[in-house]
Order: sequence, then structure tokens, then C-alpha cells
Amino acid sequence: MTKQRFGVTSGSNLRCRGWRQEGLLRLLENVLSVGEDPANLVVYAALGKAARDWPSHDAIVHALTTMGDDETLIVQSGKPIGVVKTHERAPVVIMANCNMVGQWAKAEEFYRLEKKGLICWGGLTAGDWQYIGSQGVIQGTYEIFRRIAERHFDGDLTGRLILTSGLGGMGGAQPLAGRLAGAIILCVEVDEARIARRIDSGYLQHHATSLDDAMRLVEAARAAGNASSIGLCGNAADIFPEILARGIVPDIVTDQTSAHDLIYGYVPTGLSLGEVKALRQSDPEALSRLSLASIARHVQAMLDFRAAGSVVFDNGNLIRTQAKTAGIEHAFDIPIFTEAYLRPLFARGIGPFRWIALSNDERDLRRIDEYLLKTFADNPSVVNWITLARQHIPIEGMPARIAWLGHGDRTKVGLDVNRMVREGILSGPVAFTRDHLDAGAMAHPNIMTENLKDGSDAIADWPLLNAMLACSSQADLVAIHSGGGGYAGYMTSAGVTTIADGSSEADERLRLTLTNDTSLGVMRYADAGYGEAVEEIERSRIPYINLAGHGG
Amino acid sequence: MTKQRFGVTSGSNLRCRGWRQEGLLRLLENVLSVGEDPANLVVYAALGKAARDWPSHDAIVHALTTMGDDETLIVQSGKPIGVVKTHERAPVVIMANCNMVGQWAKAEEFYRLEKKGLICWGGLTAGDWQYIGSQGVIQGTYEIFRRIAERHFDGDLTGRLILTSGLGGMGGAQPLAGRLAGAIILCVEVDEARIARRIDSGYLQHHATSLDDAMRLVEAARAAGNASSIGLCGNAADIFPEILARGIVPDIVTDQTSAHDLIYGYVPTGLSLGEVKALRQSDPEALSRLSLASIARHVQAMLDFRAAGSVVFDNGNLIRTQAKTAGIEHAFDIPIFTEAYLRPLFARGIGPFRWIALSNDERDLRRIDEYLLKTFADNPSVVNWITLARQHIPIEGMPARIAWLGHGDRTKVGLDVNRMVREGILSGPVAFTRDHLDAGAMAHPNIMTENLKDGSDAIADWPLLNAMLACSSQADLVAIHSGGGGYAGYMTSAGVTTIADGSSEADERLRLTLTNDTSLGVMRYADAGYGEAVEEIERSRIPYINLAGHGG
Ligand SMILES: NC(=O)c1ccc[n+]([C@@H]2O[C@H](COP(=O)([O-])OP(=O)(O)OC[C@H]3O[C@@H](n4cnc5c(N)ncnc54)[C@H](O)[C@@H]3O)[C@@H](O)[C@H]2O)c1
Ligand SMILES: NC(=O)c1ccc[n+]([C@@H]2O[C@H](COP(=O)([O-])OP(=O)(O)OC[C@H]3O[C@@H](n4cnc5c(N)ncnc54)[C@H](O)[C@@H]3O)[C@@H](O)[C@H]2O)c1
Repeated sequence: MTKQRFGVTSGSNLRCRGWRQEGLLRLLENVLSVGEDPANLVVYAALGKAARDWPSHDAIVHALTTMGDDETLIVQSGKPIGVVKTHERAPVVIMANCNMVGQWAKAEEFYRLEKKGLICWGGLTAGDWQYIGSQGVIQGTYEIFRRIAERHFDGDLTGRLILTSGLGGMGGAQPLAGRLAGAIILCVEVDEARIARRIDSGYLQHHATSLDDAMRLVEAARAAGNASSIGLCGNAADIFPEILARGIVPDIVTDQTSAHDLIYGYVPTGLSLGEVKALRQSDPEALSRLSLASIARHVQAMLDFRAAGSVVFDNGNLIRTQAKTAGIEHAFDIPIFTEAYLRPLFARGIGPFRWIALSNDERDLRRIDEYLLKTFADNPSVVNWITLARQHIPIEGMPARIAWLGHGDRTKVGLDVNRMVREGILSGPVAFTRDHLDAGAMAHPNIMTENLKDGSDAIADWPLLNAMLACSSQADLVAIHSGGGGYAGYMTSAGVTTIADGSSEADERLRLTLTNDTSLGVMRYADAGYGEAVEEIERSRIPYINLAGHGG
Repeated sequence: MTKQRFGVTSGSNLRCRGWRQEGLLRLLENVLSVGEDPANLVVYAALGKAARDWPSHDAIVHALTTMGDDETLIVQSGKPIGVVKTHERAPVVIMANCNMVGQWAKAEEFYRLEKKGLICWGGLTAGDWQYIGSQGVIQGTYEIFRRIAERHFDGDLTGRLILTSGLGGMGGAQPLAGRLAGAIILCVEVDEARIARRIDSGYLQHHATSLDDAMRLVEAARAAGNASSIGLCGNAADIFPEILARGIVPDIVTDQTSAHDLIYGYVPTGLSLGEVKALRQSDPEALSRLSLASIARHVQAMLDFRAAGSVVFDNGNLIRTQAKTAGIEHAFDIPIFTEAYLRPLFARGIGPFRWIALSNDERDLRRIDEYLLKTFADNPSVVNWITLARQHIPIEGMPARIAWLGHGDRTKVGLDVNRMVREGILSGPVAFTRDHLDAGAMAHPNIMTENLKDGSDAIADWPLLNAMLACSSQADLVAIHSGGGGYAGYMTSAGVTTIADGSSEADERLRLTLTNDTSLGVMRYADAGYGEAVEEIERSRIPYINLAGHGG
């Protein structure tokens, strides 16, 4: 039995006993409404699911609509296990998704367990109902492009060409982020329908019919001095080498195909989408081998672009790891985006903070935008981003915004918005959450924590502490996720959501959750030896225990 | 700077702001006072430590003695990171010890990180200050022997010979457990000093000078119809084959050397302890190879005993896994103790529950013993165990008791004891905790969760949920541990401690913590398809969401 329509709920009618439960229920509806394949509960990244299966989904909905304020729903890999009596300051929902014991945490074991219906992958924000559509990563991608602009192009990407691939749930943010950053961006995508979808949603402008056509569109934009986004249907493992062969050297090259998953994600060259689908069932191992071979070509082209002068970076899809397996020795010469561009932000606790207007009323989002523009008037990066976002980012699902805010600022926004809910300035409650790719929230040695100063890349204590601390800080939903599919064994992260329902209890929930979340993130980077974090600790008096002086 | 004396604190003087903090501080002192090598912070199992290093230890003590009741101390692999404001129903301490991202969770990476001072292994109960000396495992070992007696020897082990090895922190419980179970037990231990130590503590009776002497002692006990425990200095990899060669077939054979760790644990044959110590530094890889080769001989002898008719089982030290690596194809023919003997108990939430009298007053322990004998008068296994324990188990460190109790019973004991504290029947507060080897608390596919009915052996969501739930249920200390050393990548578990200080708040803390802890354990087994668990859910109305009927 499969649900057929995926809408979100508006207004102030409660189906649950309170807004904490109702808010989480609306978020669950929301991730499906903006998801890539909601009929199969898939939200993004090929396999990232909102619930294990439909009976689990329905039982989760039932639990949320019936449980009391002093109860906690336990979810194990997308399946609800029980609703137990806790207390009013305990989370409404705790979840652990896709965690496997280390020596077993491999793609094959994941697929085996998944096939048996014993596990499901929650992606980062799918399984814990925090996904807000392509907007979720757009500011991250935008910040990377801006930072590259500053470092390599005198702060100006006008006339500069970005080459990338993948226009899926996350990758679909790239054309808009590139255009907002002022560049011309060419996106190679193997699935025609994904290109159409991004054009429909306003994230992508042009659909090129061939590489020649694409390059004409690039040249036209360049001549006019315009930013532009162009989609081209094709396989990156073919098109990247072809561009190279023509002697074209883009200014920036990256990729966001689902390279992390050799079976359900990456599409190898030479096969139609239908053939890939069939092979997934009939011979997944052969499909893996073909994907690996294509990724080798794909990454070799990226390395060649790098040698030719392009700024090339890995945007967090494990493509280097796969390429290395496929024999591309130097794959890791390509730097990871976190280390290259975002680490100084994370060290200060600045990361992808987000909120969702649970009323489903766009005006609530606008009012919070205005509040931000006023309150952060002296913070150009916030002003710049909110201004762009208001103008250019289409609403998907419930009105939501992402903004890279740090320690202290997040708490301030949470409390101010809660007051706005209380005072009726907003028409309904607001949910606060963040990406898992946040300072204290993720251990991911090939992406988030690659090459940390102290070498603590692989230590996963931090996300676990992050989740335990959130449970101890009155968050409404807390999740621990590990990688599934090709990410199996590669990462562990924590997710947290807190509902601003205008109550004074919500003040306390938000104050503790948001403050402790960023505090731990900054402490994690201070512990790893980052000066920015040590500064932030002093500036904000974060209660870090500094043992450095004692040889600790 | 190393501490030199390791005592415990008595009486009702508080060094902290309340008993929750004071109790945890006393437990920290206690694990060192009963630990194997406290000067190096090692509590048991070769590397299981109470804190990362001495500066960390001192900073933990400082934090516990100064923090308020609405604050939480964060500990990452034995190092205190910060004390943050939470609230009065949040844990005093949260910790994550030795967790590594799956693909990196290997012994070599652990040693690399350990050497850099970035991580430390907490064992199960060392890092979270729950260890209570050899007594901790004694009932577990006793229960296994009793179960073997019932299944294979008409319930009577009189005159039966148990052969085992390893008299370390945990293994040292074997001679006493074997004797309490009525058997003659021969323990092979390579380190003379360990034998002496177990004799001093009253856990072991005889020190044989040779195998001939040992066998004479066995025969004498058999002739007299006595239970008996005999220690023999030697290497199991030599002595086991020698016993076999003499045509002696023990009734029961097991092992509790630190086989999980090829460098710091197992001692290979042919080397003196001094030579092993030197090799750890000079050539750890050579040492690993030698250990593996010895383990192969050791396990081959165990398999040969099995073929000759002995009841042989693995007692949870990964010796089969190592032997398999060393080429012993059939190592896993030896069953693991959990599956063979304890699973029906775990499925009902029955497991190694324990309490510690924080007053350090033995009379408190006696009073709780008496309460148990009265309250559980109709439960022969409790009565039998408490009676034996009172008579035979020497007190190590603070007075503590272990008893295998299940869902409901644990909550009852917790609440009754808290009342006894409140009414002054006991002279001070009592800490409640349990081993990590408990129903919902551990994923350990080669030990705890081997061969589960549904195949969910490697899923680690459960211990993570267990920890999150404990944080949400007002536990005082919550820990997530993963394996270090040779256990790296093999397990994840959760620890929880709650202090009964006689207050009504403690009533709530104990009710929620103890009830939810066993509830989750039973749900885990119900989810895996165990009938005992489904029965317990019905009997105790555990709020499990049963999707079985819906194909979930
Ligand atoms: N920066 C980050 O930390 C971050 C954030 C989110 C997602 N990701 C990763 O980015 C990747 C993309 O995520 P998503 O949610 O967009 O995944 P998705 O599965 O929704 O989309 C992937 C897209 O790539 C296309 N594709 C696959 N193989 C291709 C090929 N050879 N050539 C051209 N197109 C191809 C697919 O058709 C699909 O549209 C994933 O690996 C994801 O885990 C990274
Ligand atoms: N049943 C369980 O679940 C459970 C509980 C606790 C410990 N364990 C495991 O049991 C093992 C023992 O734990 P411990 O705390 O006693 O460890 P320990 O390191 O304190 O003691 C191990 C003992 O084995 C001896 N030894 C080593 N190699 C030997 C050999 N070849 N022959 C004879 N003796 C040898 C050592 O001298 C030492 O005394 C560990 O692997 C531990 O992880 C299992």
C-alpha cells in the first residue's frame, strides 16, 4: 500500500496533542512533499528515506498524533519501536538510523540488511525529517563559490565558467548557487527528467541540446556579461573528457552525481537508465564494476582539468574514494570542499542553520527574513544571502530558509522568533534545525573531517556526544545517522530539531539546544587545535575545559 | 604526574554539590581502587581505562566537585571537554568513548590514535566508572556454568572438571564461579603474579606447581566430592595441548585470556612476560604474528576437546575471530556463550544489574541482600545467588552486588532501595548500574548478537537508542562505548548509572531509567523475533509498536 499524494498541512489546526508533535508530523509530510521519489519514501541521494516502509510510516504518524507530552517515540532505522513514558523535557522523538558495527559497516552488509527490511538509510536530513528541498545545500554551495571567487578571482565570477554534474535532490542546487554567485554554470546530468524538473522549479535556466549548444549558451552569457545556468543531458564520464579534448578549461570544476553509491546512485556510461534499473536487480556486482570504471574516467578528467589550471574540488560525494578504488592513484590531489573552504567557518560554529514555517504561510518566512535583515544589518554575509534568497529561491514544500549562522546568533534568532510566535507576529510555530554537516555534528573522514590538524578525522565520539547533549538539552527530535549504501562505514552524524511554539518552555528548549549544539561544535575544533575555535571560546565564554597547558 | 594511592571514600561527607556528582566521583575512585593497573589508569582487559590520562582525570575530578545540579560534564574518550548548562533532569555526565567511523574502526587506527593521545578505550565498564571488580562477571560466569550443568550434567557439577585460562580482571572471577557452581576448575594463567593476586583476594584456592600437581589436586577434590579451584602457571597454548595429549577430557572447556588484543593482551608461547613487554615497543607486528600463531594452537586444542566430548564455549574474548584469521577454519564451531546459554534471559530483559553502596559501608550491602532475599523469596535463582554471594564473594573496593534481574524487578529494587536510603535504613546513597552486556545495550556480532534470529547482528542502532533514551530518562551518567584495541570495530554498547540518594527526584530518575532501559532491551529482542520477548511485552505491557502483522 503506497500513499499517492504528498502535501503539506497549513494553518493552526492541531492533529496532535501539542505543537511539538504536530510540528514533527508536518516536517515528516514536508520531506515527502519535496522528496525525489515519495511513493517509495525516498527523499534524496538515491536511497535516503523518511521511514523504513509504509507500515512504519503510518505507525509513526499514528504515534505522533496520539502520544502525550511526557512520552518519547523511539525510531530505529525508520521503524517505530515504541512510545515510552519519559518526561516533559525529554525529546518527542529519538532515532538511530543505519548505524552498523564498524567491521560490518560496508555497502554489501547494508544492502543485505536493507533487502531483509532490517535497516534503512536516513541520508543526513531525510530520515529525521529535516530536508527542505534543494535550498538546503544551496547556501553551502554558494558560500564555496564565493570563497573560491575571493581566493582565486578577485572576488568576481563574472564570465567565469563552472563545470559540474548531477542535478538530483542536492546537486539541483548547483545551477542556482552558481548563478547567484555571478558565474556561468554548466551542469551535466544523465537523466533528462531531472533537468526538466530543475527548470520547472526555477533552479535551472537553460536546457542545452548538445555540447555545442551548451558552449554557445556559455559564450553568449559571457559576451553579455550575464550569470547563467545551463543543463546538458549526458554522462559526465563522457562529457567531461570531451570538453577537455576540445581544449576548454573551465575556471571551476566539481561534481555532485551520487558517486557514493555504485548501484543506486552513479550511472555508468554506455547504459540507458532502463538498463541500469534492470542491472540493479539482475547483476548489481557488474553494475558496480561499470560504475567504478566510469568514475575513473570522470575523476581522471577532473584531475586533468586541475593540471590545466581549473580550480577543482570534491563536493562531498565520495567520488575520490571510489576513483582511488578504481585505480586513480592521485584522486585525493583534489581537495575536499570542507577543508579547502568551510573549515574556518565550522571552527567558529558557523554552519547551515535552518528554519521552517510550520504554518505553511509564506508571510511568516518573509517576516523572519525582514527580522534578519534588520538584526544582522552589520553582517554583510547574512544580508547578502537573505537578500538573494528572498529574490531568487523558489519555495519548495513548507516555507523554509537556510542561513549560515554561528554560536550565539543561532540562539538569538531562535529566541527572537519564538517571541514573534508568542506575540502573534508570526501566524504559527517555527521549527529550527540544521544540516548534519555542522561543526560538532559529523565525523566523515573523507568529507567533513578530512585532514584535521590533530589527526582526529576518524573519531566518531563527537556526533554521539552531540546527540546525547541534544537529548539532555530539551531538543524535540534527536537522531544519530550513519552512512548507508556507498556511504556505509564512512560517516556518523547527529541531527536535531526544536520547535518554537511561542511558549516559555520553548524559550528554554531553544536556548539550551541551540547554544549547546554550537558550543560543542566549537569545542570540537578547539580540541583539534583550530585557532578560530579558541578565539570563539574566549569571545563567547564557551565553557570548554582547556587541558592544552597540562599536556592533556 | 601519577597518583600513587587508590582508595575509596566513605561516609556522608560531600565534596561535590550533591550526591549525584559525589556518587559518580566515588565510582571513579572505585574503579581505580579495584583496577588492575591504576597508576596507568587501567581498570581491566589490558587497556580499558578510567580516563585518558592524569590531567584528564584531575580535570574530571575538578569538574565533578564544582559543577551545579543543572550542568552536564561532557567526556570524550576519557577527556573532559566542557561543563555546559543543561537542566536538573539532564545527566550529570555524558560520555562517548573510543567510537571510530566504521571503515577506520580497526586495531591499527585505534593504536595510532591512542599513541597520539586522541582516544582511549573505556572497556565496557572501566571508562564509565561502573566496574566493581571481578564480582562484575562472576554471576554471568556462574549462570553459564549452571545452565551447562542443567543441560548436560543433570544439574550437578560435582566431580566435573572445568578447564579454562586467564586470571585477569574479568577472568579472575572464573575460579570462584566454577567453585560456586560445584565444579573443580583448573585455570591456566601465564602470569604468576595474577595467580597470587586471585589467591590473596580469596577468588582462587590452590596454586599448583606443575600440571602433575594440578591433576593430583583435581583427583583429590574429585575423590572427596569437593568443589575446588586450582591455578596453574603456564601458557594455555602449551598446557591445553599437553592435557589433550595426556588423554584427559575435561567436562567443560573455555578461555578468558585477553585474546581480543594481540599486542597488549594475549601472551604468545615461548616468550617471557619481559620479552613480550619489550616487543610491544620494538616490534608490535611480530608480536601480533606470534600471538596469532599461539591462538591457533590454543583454539585447535579447544576444538579437539570438543571433538573428544567436552562442552566447549567461547566466553566473549574474540578468540574464535583471531583463530579464524590464523587459519583455524572451524573456529566458529565453538558456540558463543550468549547464544548458547544467555539469550533466553536477555530476551526477557534479565541481565547483569548491579548496585554499589556509596557509603562504603558493608552493612548497607547486607541490608540490601536481606531485602532481596525477602522480596524475591519465590525466585530461587535470586535467592540462590544472593545466598552464595553473601557467603563467598569477598568485597573489593566499595561494597557492591550484582544480580541478574529483569524488567520490572530492577525498577522495584531501585525504588525500594531509594526508599531505604530516604528512611535511613541504609547509611548512604546507592548507585545503580549494569554491565554493557545487557539486552538493549550492546551490538557485538561475534559475542552478544551473534546469530540473532532475524539476522540483525550488526545493527548498532540499539545501543545508540539505549543511550539517547537514558539521557531522556534522567539517568545520571550515560556512555556510548565502542571497542578499542583488538575489539576495535567489533562492538558498540551503552552504559548507564543512576544514583539513589533517597530523594523523590531520584524516585523519578530510577523509575524512568531502569524501566526504559529494560523496556528497550525487551523490544529489541521482540523486534528480532524472540518469543520470550513477545511474552514479556504482553506480561508487562511494554509499550512496543508491533508491526509484525502489517508486514513491517
Ligand atoms: N556537500 C555535501 O556534503 C553534500 C550534501 C548533500 C549531498 N551530497 C552528495 O552529493 C551527491 C548528490 O546528492 P543528490 O541528493 O543530488 O543525489 P541524487 O541521487 O538525488 O542525484 C544524483 C544525480 O546524479 C545523476 N547522475 C548519476 N550518474 C551520473 C553521471 N555519470 N553523469 C551525470 N549525471 C549522473 C543522477 O541522474 C541524479 O540526478 C550524493 O553523493 C550526496 O550524498 C553532498
Ligand atoms: N563474558 C564477557 O562478555 C566478557 C566480560 C569481560 C571480559 N571479557 C573478555 O575476557 C577477556 C579477559 O578479560 P580480563 O579483564 O580478565 O583481561 P585481563 O587483561 O585483565 O586478563 C587477561 C589474563 O590472561 C592472561 N593471559 C594472556 N595470554 C595468556 C596465555 N596465552 N595463556 C594463559 N594466560 C594468558 C594474562 O596474563 C592476564 O592475566 C578479555 O578479552 C575481555 O575483553 C569478556
